[in-house]
Amino acid sequence: MEVPEQANKWLSQLSKANLKERLNRTFDRQVKLAVTGLSRSGKTVFITSLVHQLLHGLEGSHLPFFHIVSSGRLQGTKLMHHPDMHIPAFRYDPSIEQLCQESPLWPEPTSGLSQIRVAIRYQTDNALVKKVNPVNTLFVDIVDYPGEWLLDLPLLELSYEDWSMQIADMCQHEPRLSLSKDWREFMAQQDVTGQVTDETLRKASELYTEFLHRCKDRQYNMSLLQPGRFTMPGDLKGAPLLEFCPVLELPSGTTQAAESFFLIMKKRYESYKEHVVKKFYTEHFSSFDRQIVLVDMLRAFNIGHASFTDMREALNMVLRSFEYGKTGLMNKLFGLKIDRLLFAATKADHVTPNQLPNLERFLQQMLTQSYNDVIFEGVTTETLALSSVKCTQAAHTQFQGQKISCIKGVPLDSNQPIALFPGEVPTDIPLPEEWVDGRFNFVEFKPPRLTNGNGNRIPHIRLDRALEFLIGDKF
Amino acid sequence: MEVPEQANKWLSQLSKANLKERLNRTFDRQVKLAVTGLSRSGKTVFITSLVHQLLHGLEGSHLPFFHIVSSGRLQGTKLMHHPDMHIPAFRYDPSIEQLCQESPLWPEPTSGLSQIRVAIRYQTDNALVKKVNPVNTLFVDIVDYPGEWLLDLPLLELSYEDWSMQIADMCQHEPRLSLSKDWREFMAQQDVTGQVTDETLRKASELYTEFLHRCKDRQYNMSLLQPGRFTMPGDLKGAPLLEFCPVLELPSGTTQAAESFFLIMKKRYESYKEHVVKKFYTEHFSSFDRQIVLVDMLRAFNIGHASFTDMREALNMVLRSFEYGKTGLMNKLFGLKIDRLLFAATKADHVTPNQLPNLERFLQQMLTQSYNDVIFEGVTTETLALSSVKCTQAAHTQFQGQKISCIKGVPLDSNQPIALFPGEVPTDIPLPEEWVDGRFNFVEFKPPRLTNGNGNRIPHIRLDRALEFLIGDKF
Repeated sequence: MEVPEQANKWLSQLSKANLKERLNRTFDRQVKLAVTGLSRSGKTVFITSLVHQLLHGLEGSHLPFFHIVSSGRLQGTKLMHHPDMHIPAFRYDPSIEQLCQESPLWPEPTSGLSQIRVAIRYQTDNALVKKVNPVNTLFVDIVDYPGEWLLDLPLLELSYEDWSMQIADMCQHEPRLSLSKDWREFMAQQDVTGQVTDETLRKASELYTEFLHRCKDRQYNMSLLQPGRFTMPGDLKGAPLLEFCPVLELPSGTTQAAESFFLIMKKRYESYKEHVVKKFYTEHFSSFDRQIVLVDMLRAFNIGHASFTDMREALNMVLRSFEYGKTGLMNKLFGLKIDRLLFAATKADHVTPNQLPNLERFLQQMLTQSYNDVIFEGVTTETLALSSVKCTQAAHTQFQGQKISCIKGVPLDSNQPIALFPGEVPTDIPLPEEWVDGRFNFVEFKPPRLTNGNGNRIPHIRLDRALEFLIGDKF
Repeated sequence: MEVPEQANKWLSQLSKANLKERLNRTFDRQVKLAVTGLSRSGKTVFITSLVHQLLHGLEGSHLPFFHIVSSGRLQGTKLMHHPDMHIPAFRYDPSIEQLCQESPLWPEPTSGLSQIRVAIRYQTDNALVKKVNPVNTLFVDIVDYPGEWLLDLPLLELSYEDWSMQIADMCQHEPRLSLSKDWREFMAQQDVTGQVTDETLRKASELYTEFLHRCKDRQYNMSLLQPGRFTMPGDLKGAPLLEFCPVLELPSGTTQAAESFFLIMKKRYESYKEHVVKKFYTEHFSSFDRQIVLVDMLRAFNIGHASFTDMREALNMVLRSFEYGKTGLMNKLFGLKIDRLLFAATKADHVTPNQLPNLERFLQQMLTQSYNDVIFEGVTTETLALSSVKCTQAAHTQFQGQKISCIKGVPLDSNQPIALFPGEVPTDIPLPEEWVDGRFNFVEFKPPRLTNGNGNRIPHIRLDRALEFLIGDKF
């Protein structure tokens, strides 16, 4: 029993926080859990609830499948100050306050990257470690970042020419065909090999950015928006590397002006990859240990076939990013640590409990559709349907003399609880012609009223399973 | 004549833009001109007009004191794409458009850092160079950044304790005494040596940030706002290093909690210095060749004694930064290139022409007030009164039977030109009791109507002298 005390003393005397940081990682006492999802997939709600569940881990039986809790080995949890002070902190307090107030509200969505650290004290069950250090601490760093940034990673392997052809191809189908009309018409008038004015460059990139914004609009809910920073520029606003766009046709001849549209755009594209995408990769992505990707499938169902297939494309692109990360050049240069990847369909409480397996199977199908054969070396991938904050109750009603499952909750635009049959999640991906208007109409709900703020647990569905998969092996 | 052609060929074949960049600098063909000023000092208008004057250098006699133009050696000027694509571009086009439209408007102010590159082709008059390369190009990189960032540089030499005591001292005088009341009252309730909650830390830094915002308000027009990023956080919003504040009293005892208010705030202060101030120093400040600091003295006069003395403090702090930069540790580590520094009183057209010398002398007085003895090794410092866009005409009126100088222009809140006597600029700094209400009332004017956009020259006062001082020796 002498050793740990000495070691602790020694640790506490280290003045350099980053040395301590490094030691934490060496002893496998830290895990970086990255949370992402396309816009409006519920990242903020997920992290808020996850942190809340962890902080109240000792108080109840709300995490049966999170083994460290259900086995009684959890000793305590605490929010910590993160040593990386230049990275925005995830706003847990205001979010939980909004969720737990008298008239609960969904917390404000985040933009950009933020992080929060939870320290978990636990009893080890490793016989060897137990002798030296019976109580250990795992620091869980939860990193929240926009899914759009993840969709940028494939650009690292794409030349400007290849990327342009991909976008040109996508713009041949609705709704992109209509939404890109202004940009395409402008492009059609340009000689991309000739000398170009600044005004033309600016106009082209402005029209392309507007096109991306329209795609992102709730009405269309497109997922695959590249480059990801164009719709969320932050401090880079006005930088030339955010002012480019693809070309619709590649220059055929070999001669072109030294400062042609094509060459300038290509240079900016490469600069974007260098300063934005690679920077994200090396400063953040390469240090993640675990990753969860949140997916709001119900909204895609509601909006229709195009939104759904676009989401499927985007998810498969995300999958490819990880595969690429493990085998590609970037990994060789900078390494990639992620070894567990969870795709989670959120809002599992918006369907009846008996539809949960369908929701999960459907997500699996979306991912395997184009990727049956890919083996992700060293990345264990899982799918799950979950609800970060359960805002409905299972109920029953009568339909043609039969008992039928339904759910009860307060719709987002109402103050009265209703019981409704939310619709069936299909077991197979519907054919294009089956996506008739109103085929799916999943309702959005208000958060439930919790009797008392922080002391109370937030109802959820399968957050414990997510936790077990993501960090359960670290204890 | 063989040499330059070969050299040019060789240069043009270099594919790496940054190598070319470096060569440009080696041959002294590039100059980085930094433009700053406290909020609302007219940086955007200044740069817009400066670029416009340069671009139209061949068209008239509007730059008599800018020798390269008046000597007829200017061959041409051109806006260039800046090779640093990750840095926001200064928006020249929209600004000049606003200024030159039918109903001219002052351009939108900028926030953060931006830059623009002007290439100046000229005939050299160096006999030796002339033989090899009769026509040369000087690339002028104009960098626009907030004056608040400059006011952060002194922090690099200040401990958290020293800085706290400076702020505490400043808060004993009006208007800071009143404006900081909420923050000071909150601080008085805290035991800065004891354990602290996150909520307390957040509340303290929020109240301090609100205090800074109130100081910055037009009504008070305080200049000396530290830390500079607190009122303009950009992408750092929510990062712990923007959530600290000074303490009003230093802890007296030697014992305090490991995570006390004082120690956490001190750590964040150091992190701010490291990640914000030092970053600006190394990535930008250390590469500037020339610097102009714009000062709107007339507004300070209008607002009164406190605003005026605060501006004086801030300007002297800026001066000290450069001195410190030349002699201090940072310079030894990272170097500092600036060798010319111009302080310019803007809006010289808002006083009568015969008051111009007073305006300049006054600015000089402000700077020498506390710095008579400082010798700036290697930094030539100059003061000047100028007008980026002259929006008044000199006129005369009668007063008690005498002819008196006045100015004619359209006030900002009117559509009719008026002739008015704008008030006298004092020759000496008024005593505190002389700043009676309404002692100064300099009127703000609308930009003049220019007959035709880009082809026309923008009237100015002494921009040519500023140019000559800042870059004249580079030709």
